[in-house]
Amino acid sequence: MNKYLKADEWCIIEEGFDPKNHRSSESIFSLGNGRMGQRANFEEKYSGNTLQGTYIGGVYYTDKTRVGWWKNGYPEYFAKVLNAPYWNGIHVEINGEQLDLAKCKVKDFVRILNMKEGYLERSFVAVLPNGDEVKVNTRRFISMANKEIAAIRYAVTPLNFSGDIVFTSYIDGDIKNQDANYDEKFWDIIETDSQKGEAYLRSQTKKTNFQVGIGIKYAITVGGNDYETTDDDTIVDLKYVANKVSVFAEKGKQICFYKYAAVLSSMNHGVEDLLPNARILVNDACRKGFDTLLEEHRLVWKNIWEHSDIVIEGDVEAQQGIRFNIFQLKQTYTGDDARLNIGPKGFTGEKYGGSTYWDTEAYCVPFYLATADSEVTRNLLIYRYKQLDRAIENGEKLGFTDGAALYPMVTMNGEECHNEWEITFEEIHRNGAIAYAIYRYINYTGDDHYLEEYGLEVLTGIARFWAQRATFSGEKKKYVILGVTGPNEYENNINNNWYTNKIAVWCMKYVIECLEKVKGRNLARFKELIGKMKMDYQGETAKWKDMIENMHFPESKELGVFLQQDGYMDKEQILAADLDPAIRPLNQHWSWDRILRSCFIKQADVLQGIYFFENEFDMDCIKRNFEFYESRCVHESSLSPCVHSILAAKIGDMPKAYSLYLRTARLDLDDYNKEAHEGLHITSMAGTWMSIVEGFGGMRIQDGLLSFRPAIPESWKAFSFKVMHRGNILNVTVQHCRTIIFNEEGEDAEVLVDGKKYTIVKDSKLEI
Amino acid sequence: MNKYLKADEWCIIEEGFDPKNHRSSESIFSLGNGRMGQRANFEEKYSGNTLQGTYIGGVYYTDKTRVGWWKNGYPEYFAKVLNAPYWNGIHVEINGEQLDLAKCKVKDFVRILNMKEGYLERSFVAVLPNGDEVKVNTRRFISMANKEIAAIRYAVTPLNFSGDIVFTSYIDGDIKNQDANYDEKFWDIIETDSQKGEAYLRSQTKKTNFQVGIGIKYAITVGGNDYETTDDDTIVDLKYVANKVSVFAEKGKQICFYKYAAVLSSMNHGVEDLLPNARILVNDACRKGFDTLLEEHRLVWKNIWEHSDIVIEGDVEAQQGIRFNIFQLKQTYTGDDARLNIGPKGFTGEKYGGSTYWDTEAYCVPFYLATADSEVTRNLLIYRYKQLDRAIENGEKLGFTDGAALYPMVTMNGEECHNEWEITFEEIHRNGAIAYAIYRYINYTGDDHYLEEYGLEVLTGIARFWAQRATFSGEKKKYVILGVTGPNEYENNINNNWYTNKIAVWCMKYVIECLEKVKGRNLARFKELIGKMKMDYQGETAKWKDMIENMHFPESKELGVFLQQDGYMDKEQILAADLDPAIRPLNQHWSWDRILRSCFIKQADVLQGIYFFENEFDMDCIKRNFEFYESRCVHESSLSPCVHSILAAKIGDMPKAYSLYLRTARLDLDDYNKEAHEGLHITSMAGTWMSIVEGFGGMRIQDGLLSFRPAIPESWKAFSFKVMHRGNILNVTVQHCRTIIFNEEGEDAEVLVDGKKYTIVKDSKLEI
Repeated sequence: MNKYLKADEWCIIEEGFDPKNHRSSESIFSLGNGRMGQRANFEEKYSGNTLQGTYIGGVYYTDKTRVGWWKNGYPEYFAKVLNAPYWNGIHVEINGEQLDLAKCKVKDFVRILNMKEGYLERSFVAVLPNGDEVKVNTRRFISMANKEIAAIRYAVTPLNFSGDIVFTSYIDGDIKNQDANYDEKFWDIIETDSQKGEAYLRSQTKKTNFQVGIGIKYAITVGGNDYETTDDDTIVDLKYVANKVSVFAEKGKQICFYKYAAVLSSMNHGVEDLLPNARILVNDACRKGFDTLLEEHRLVWKNIWEHSDIVIEGDVEAQQGIRFNIFQLKQTYTGDDARLNIGPKGFTGEKYGGSTYWDTEAYCVPFYLATADSEVTRNLLIYRYKQLDRAIENGEKLGFTDGAALYPMVTMNGEECHNEWEITFEEIHRNGAIAYAIYRYINYTGDDHYLEEYGLEVLTGIARFWAQRATFSGEKKKYVILGVTGPNEYENNINNNWYTNKIAVWCMKYVIECLEKVKGRNLARFKELIGKMKMDYQGETAKWKDMIENMHFPESKELGVFLQQDGYMDKEQILAADLDPAIRPLNQHWSWDRILRSCFIKQADVLQGIYFFENEFDMDCIKRNFEFYESRCVHESSLSPCVHSILAAKIGDMPKAYSLYLRTARLDLDDYNKEAHEGLHITSMAGTWMSIVEGFGGMRIQDGLLSFRPAIPESWKAFSFKVMHRGNILNVTVQHCRTIIFNEEGEDAEVLVDGKKYTIVKDSKLEI
Repeated sequence: MNKYLKADEWCIIEEGFDPKNHRSSESIFSLGNGRMGQRANFEEKYSGNTLQGTYIGGVYYTDKTRVGWWKNGYPEYFAKVLNAPYWNGIHVEINGEQLDLAKCKVKDFVRILNMKEGYLERSFVAVLPNGDEVKVNTRRFISMANKEIAAIRYAVTPLNFSGDIVFTSYIDGDIKNQDANYDEKFWDIIETDSQKGEAYLRSQTKKTNFQVGIGIKYAITVGGNDYETTDDDTIVDLKYVANKVSVFAEKGKQICFYKYAAVLSSMNHGVEDLLPNARILVNDACRKGFDTLLEEHRLVWKNIWEHSDIVIEGDVEAQQGIRFNIFQLKQTYTGDDARLNIGPKGFTGEKYGGSTYWDTEAYCVPFYLATADSEVTRNLLIYRYKQLDRAIENGEKLGFTDGAALYPMVTMNGEECHNEWEITFEEIHRNGAIAYAIYRYINYTGDDHYLEEYGLEVLTGIARFWAQRATFSGEKKKYVILGVTGPNEYENNINNNWYTNKIAVWCMKYVIECLEKVKGRNLARFKELIGKMKMDYQGETAKWKDMIENMHFPESKELGVFLQQDGYMDKEQILAADLDPAIRPLNQHWSWDRILRSCFIKQADVLQGIYFFENEFDMDCIKRNFEFYESRCVHESSLSPCVHSILAAKIGDMPKAYSLYLRTARLDLDDYNKEAHEGLHITSMAGTWMSIVEGFGGMRIQDGLLSFRPAIPESWKAFSFKVMHRGNILNVTVQHCRTIIFNEEGEDAEVLVDGKKYTIVKDSKLEI
């Protein structure tokens, strides 16, 4: 844990410059707009410890797999989002000396992420080695209004001298990924160009042949007035372009250097158009000017917050935490492009390759469903639909046939690219989450039509996989699923993971239901799909039904709990609370085998299943399982505490729910796991939102209606959240004595509160 | 399978040159003398596909670990035996043109490995691109008589021209390992020197700082007469030294170029003495001359064969196969240096890093016990004794305490260096094999004294490991051993591997017995050891006894078989015979998860345990288990068929025993697994020997006596083998109608044949 940021309701604030925290701050203060993003690297030169990171959604590289020992079936490459050409840099030379905070005395340093308006600003006074003292104020944003535009205002005021300040505004194409498996660089430069005030660079990824075209343009004001320079050097190197401009600075007079960048990729433009279009865009941006662009950007954020804000009264840290999570999620994925997805680190670092994991379906879908237009979640589903053929191919590589789809554990383009056998090949429950997300989407939006359009094919491929993956045990006279890794990755290659068996059976059941539904509603389309999928409808569903009825589920009758897997009770039963804190986290202290054979759980597993299928279990059963597993769970996955928190709230254990909430809400801000420097836990941030809305708010969908069972942590005065649901926007406020639901938008809304149905007239509120 | 070698009783013969086979032949025709060894690389330049390999026992490098995904507990390095400076080369330039079989027309090519006398020879006629035709005859050996000396005779006869032939005899220090994890070179050159007729190079391994000093010297005869050259260029480069000498060759007249090499390492010499000593040795060798050196070498081999030969009548291929196995084993390990061990590929390739595996204890020990002085096996045991501290450290790294020793899966110096969690951390049965080897040694030799000297400490460390590794299952009310990989590596992270539990219990039992024995015989030493090991004798052995009595062993009562692990009968029970041959071997066709969840077995596992502890089981039980597991075993480990073959012979299924024998005996010669090019399966060759002696010969130790239950494969006329046992050498001949045992050496020998006791008077034979 590292608590160095100042609490504030709307801002993340770092006061004072400590180079030790800089890499973490680069992650925390990251900016993005769904299309692209960037770590909070300094504009000026910084020779200290930094991880330069500029990312463009969907632009990836297939890095040759690195393993210790090859296993048959491993993919040839690991796809990673690339560190892209760096358009952010403005080197500042003062009287011949580079401004570099690693080499200056830094005073009054403040870095602020303004989450309400979506910009990053920084101010400081630097005393250069030569004694020159400057005050610097910067502000930048990546436009949510125009997804290809970013802007920087970099203001310098000489405090104790007058002299020349040289600004070098550049694009650096000679970048690399720190996580490159073989220390290679992934970009070829295609074209560079620079002219007065502007510079351009076009480059192409090796192997995958994505192209990126970037244009930059600057403008300067001195003392508030436009400044026309005559001293503009254009620099065009092999992999670098720049404009270098010298301005005479008068003591006390502020020089503002505005840098505009247009970042385009071949995903959206013809390669030959990249630079011409970049030129048009960056010139447009420059004409509009910084303030206008920022205002457009601010309005988008205003709209986002109106639909998704959570207000917590009486706990500034909790307030800051939840807003930070919402802010990061919203700038990582905006849902207007079905080719994009949500990498576990978003645009904030290289770890996990920026690829798609089951996190999206299991954790992010509820957040986007409730806080954005349903189109956003739909695009997440269509992403997988488009990759169905690849999922079937992936299944074939592992020996499955007849259209059985196994979605990859990690992917960029639909192909599996992870290479740990116990995960790649065995963590197959991911397939279930993809089906569950379709269920969630339809259940939430009522968009049944999605089934016949896209959903049914994905669902059938997944059900077919389960039907082939389960086998019949002559010993147990039941179907079994052998050799899997459940959500709890602290067990590998186990048999009959309860959660996996559960979601497999649920999938088959749900798919039969969906097939029937489409058949009943649109027979022609049903027949068309059956034909397309070459499906033996009777035969296949009969087999599924047999499996549904005869699946083995490990349980302890004695304890009244479901068992995470066969043989779980053979383990030494020690509780997490009895562990010496000095050996936590276990994964940094115990060898892997010791973790595996211990009873300790990395993240919700049986409880994940109970969370998904809670209606199947009575409260006592949920309670018993919660208590059993929570006491054995070490929560060493960022995805874990939220599910436990929701269930704790459900069973009425609010102190536990609150303490688990705290663990997730400020995970990165307070750097609980000492890994914020690698990037943020973007996907688990959705879990934080779930902890409040589904946990404390008790929000569920029941027969198509929103249902709430509100509860409030003792230390809070009140909390409120917004929910979009079938045309309504409801603002739910929970106080200790009452719950108020305001119908902000849409028609009259029917809701359930604590099981009772209410109608809330448009523009009015319900108070209970 | 690739059958291109000619059958012969004493020689391996390759006729005709096919570059496709060259890398395999380089492995098969390898030479060694226990101290060093070399693949059969051509002396002259060869620009075709080749794997250059020259190895010096014990000289290794700690190559930085390469993994895909790091797990806590992984070792920092993988130790590998190094490709050492190449002293073997003699480039031959004929009228200005390099002799290079990749660029010549090659006629009458014959390569012969003479196993009886231990040399490699080669003859061919080459037509060079310029039309010059030469006949070449080479012979070389690595001396078994002087472990630091090797010699080459390279004879060239011009067939259709007279002209200059330039010989360049060199040492190349600029070599690398093909399996280098990061493509680095591992040697620094310390010193190079060359003068007329001689050249020297001293180099040092990076990180591990072994030094190797090599001297070479040449002599020439022309038409049988000594030839004194005046044209000798010495070449001294940074990493290369050579003597380049030109000889005028008369058509039809043979030029013999003799090259002597002395190869010394800092394991046996002070670093400063390396080159001075190499100079002395290589000059001595040159003075003695090729024929004398070869004669000394031949005599050592004569002696080896007298103690270890197996003769098979009526089956030349089987004869060649078993002699090849014995030959390779004997030139890999000679047992005079307790710092050395037996790498799975010996000196024939880089694979497996040339390190020590459990193969040594489980497979090689019986071979060396019966075919060499007991000192040889004793040195193998002392090797592990010397690494006991490291084994305890290795245990500590994995969380064990109080002197629990976990011997590494793969090691060079006692530290673990393998990095696959399912093997490194979980294939713990290796620890049992090390204890079992001590038992075998004492049982065979009667050298009880070894216990108090060395054995007991190793045994106690191992027993302590098992006592900590097993845990008590509240569910089963039995001790369990969770999360292991058994000998069958086609199962990972399983619970209660029958073999592992079996050997764990056996270990604890045996160690209690040994402690009692030493206590009874030598109380002072006993007390000293108890003190040294800080042992709570009563407490610890009481715990072991409880575990011995209450260990869980999975079994199927219904089938009457032991189960390889918990849950084995939940698998789909398909037989190996029903597998489509097109998908064999499974490990090249199925993804790893599919292999893991199938019932197919890579190698003897339950049967390995039955083989070790056969006296505990009645014949019906052995039969049932054999039939159950043999039908599920795909034998994709070279270590597998031998154990199955021995058990098949034991239960009287001779056709099965024979077919399994064939699978092991010519594994490399006929390249069953298409991997001979990587090196030979040295350690599994001992299994071939076991198949004949323990399988067909039925040899066991019973109450200190040799016991035989001979049987003979139908297609053989007779077979005979030599056994050394407690001062006797017995020559056992098995024919279809009778068995003859000749007491070649030692006092009168008592033996058991088919359960009856006989005494064989010195120098006479027993015929039954």
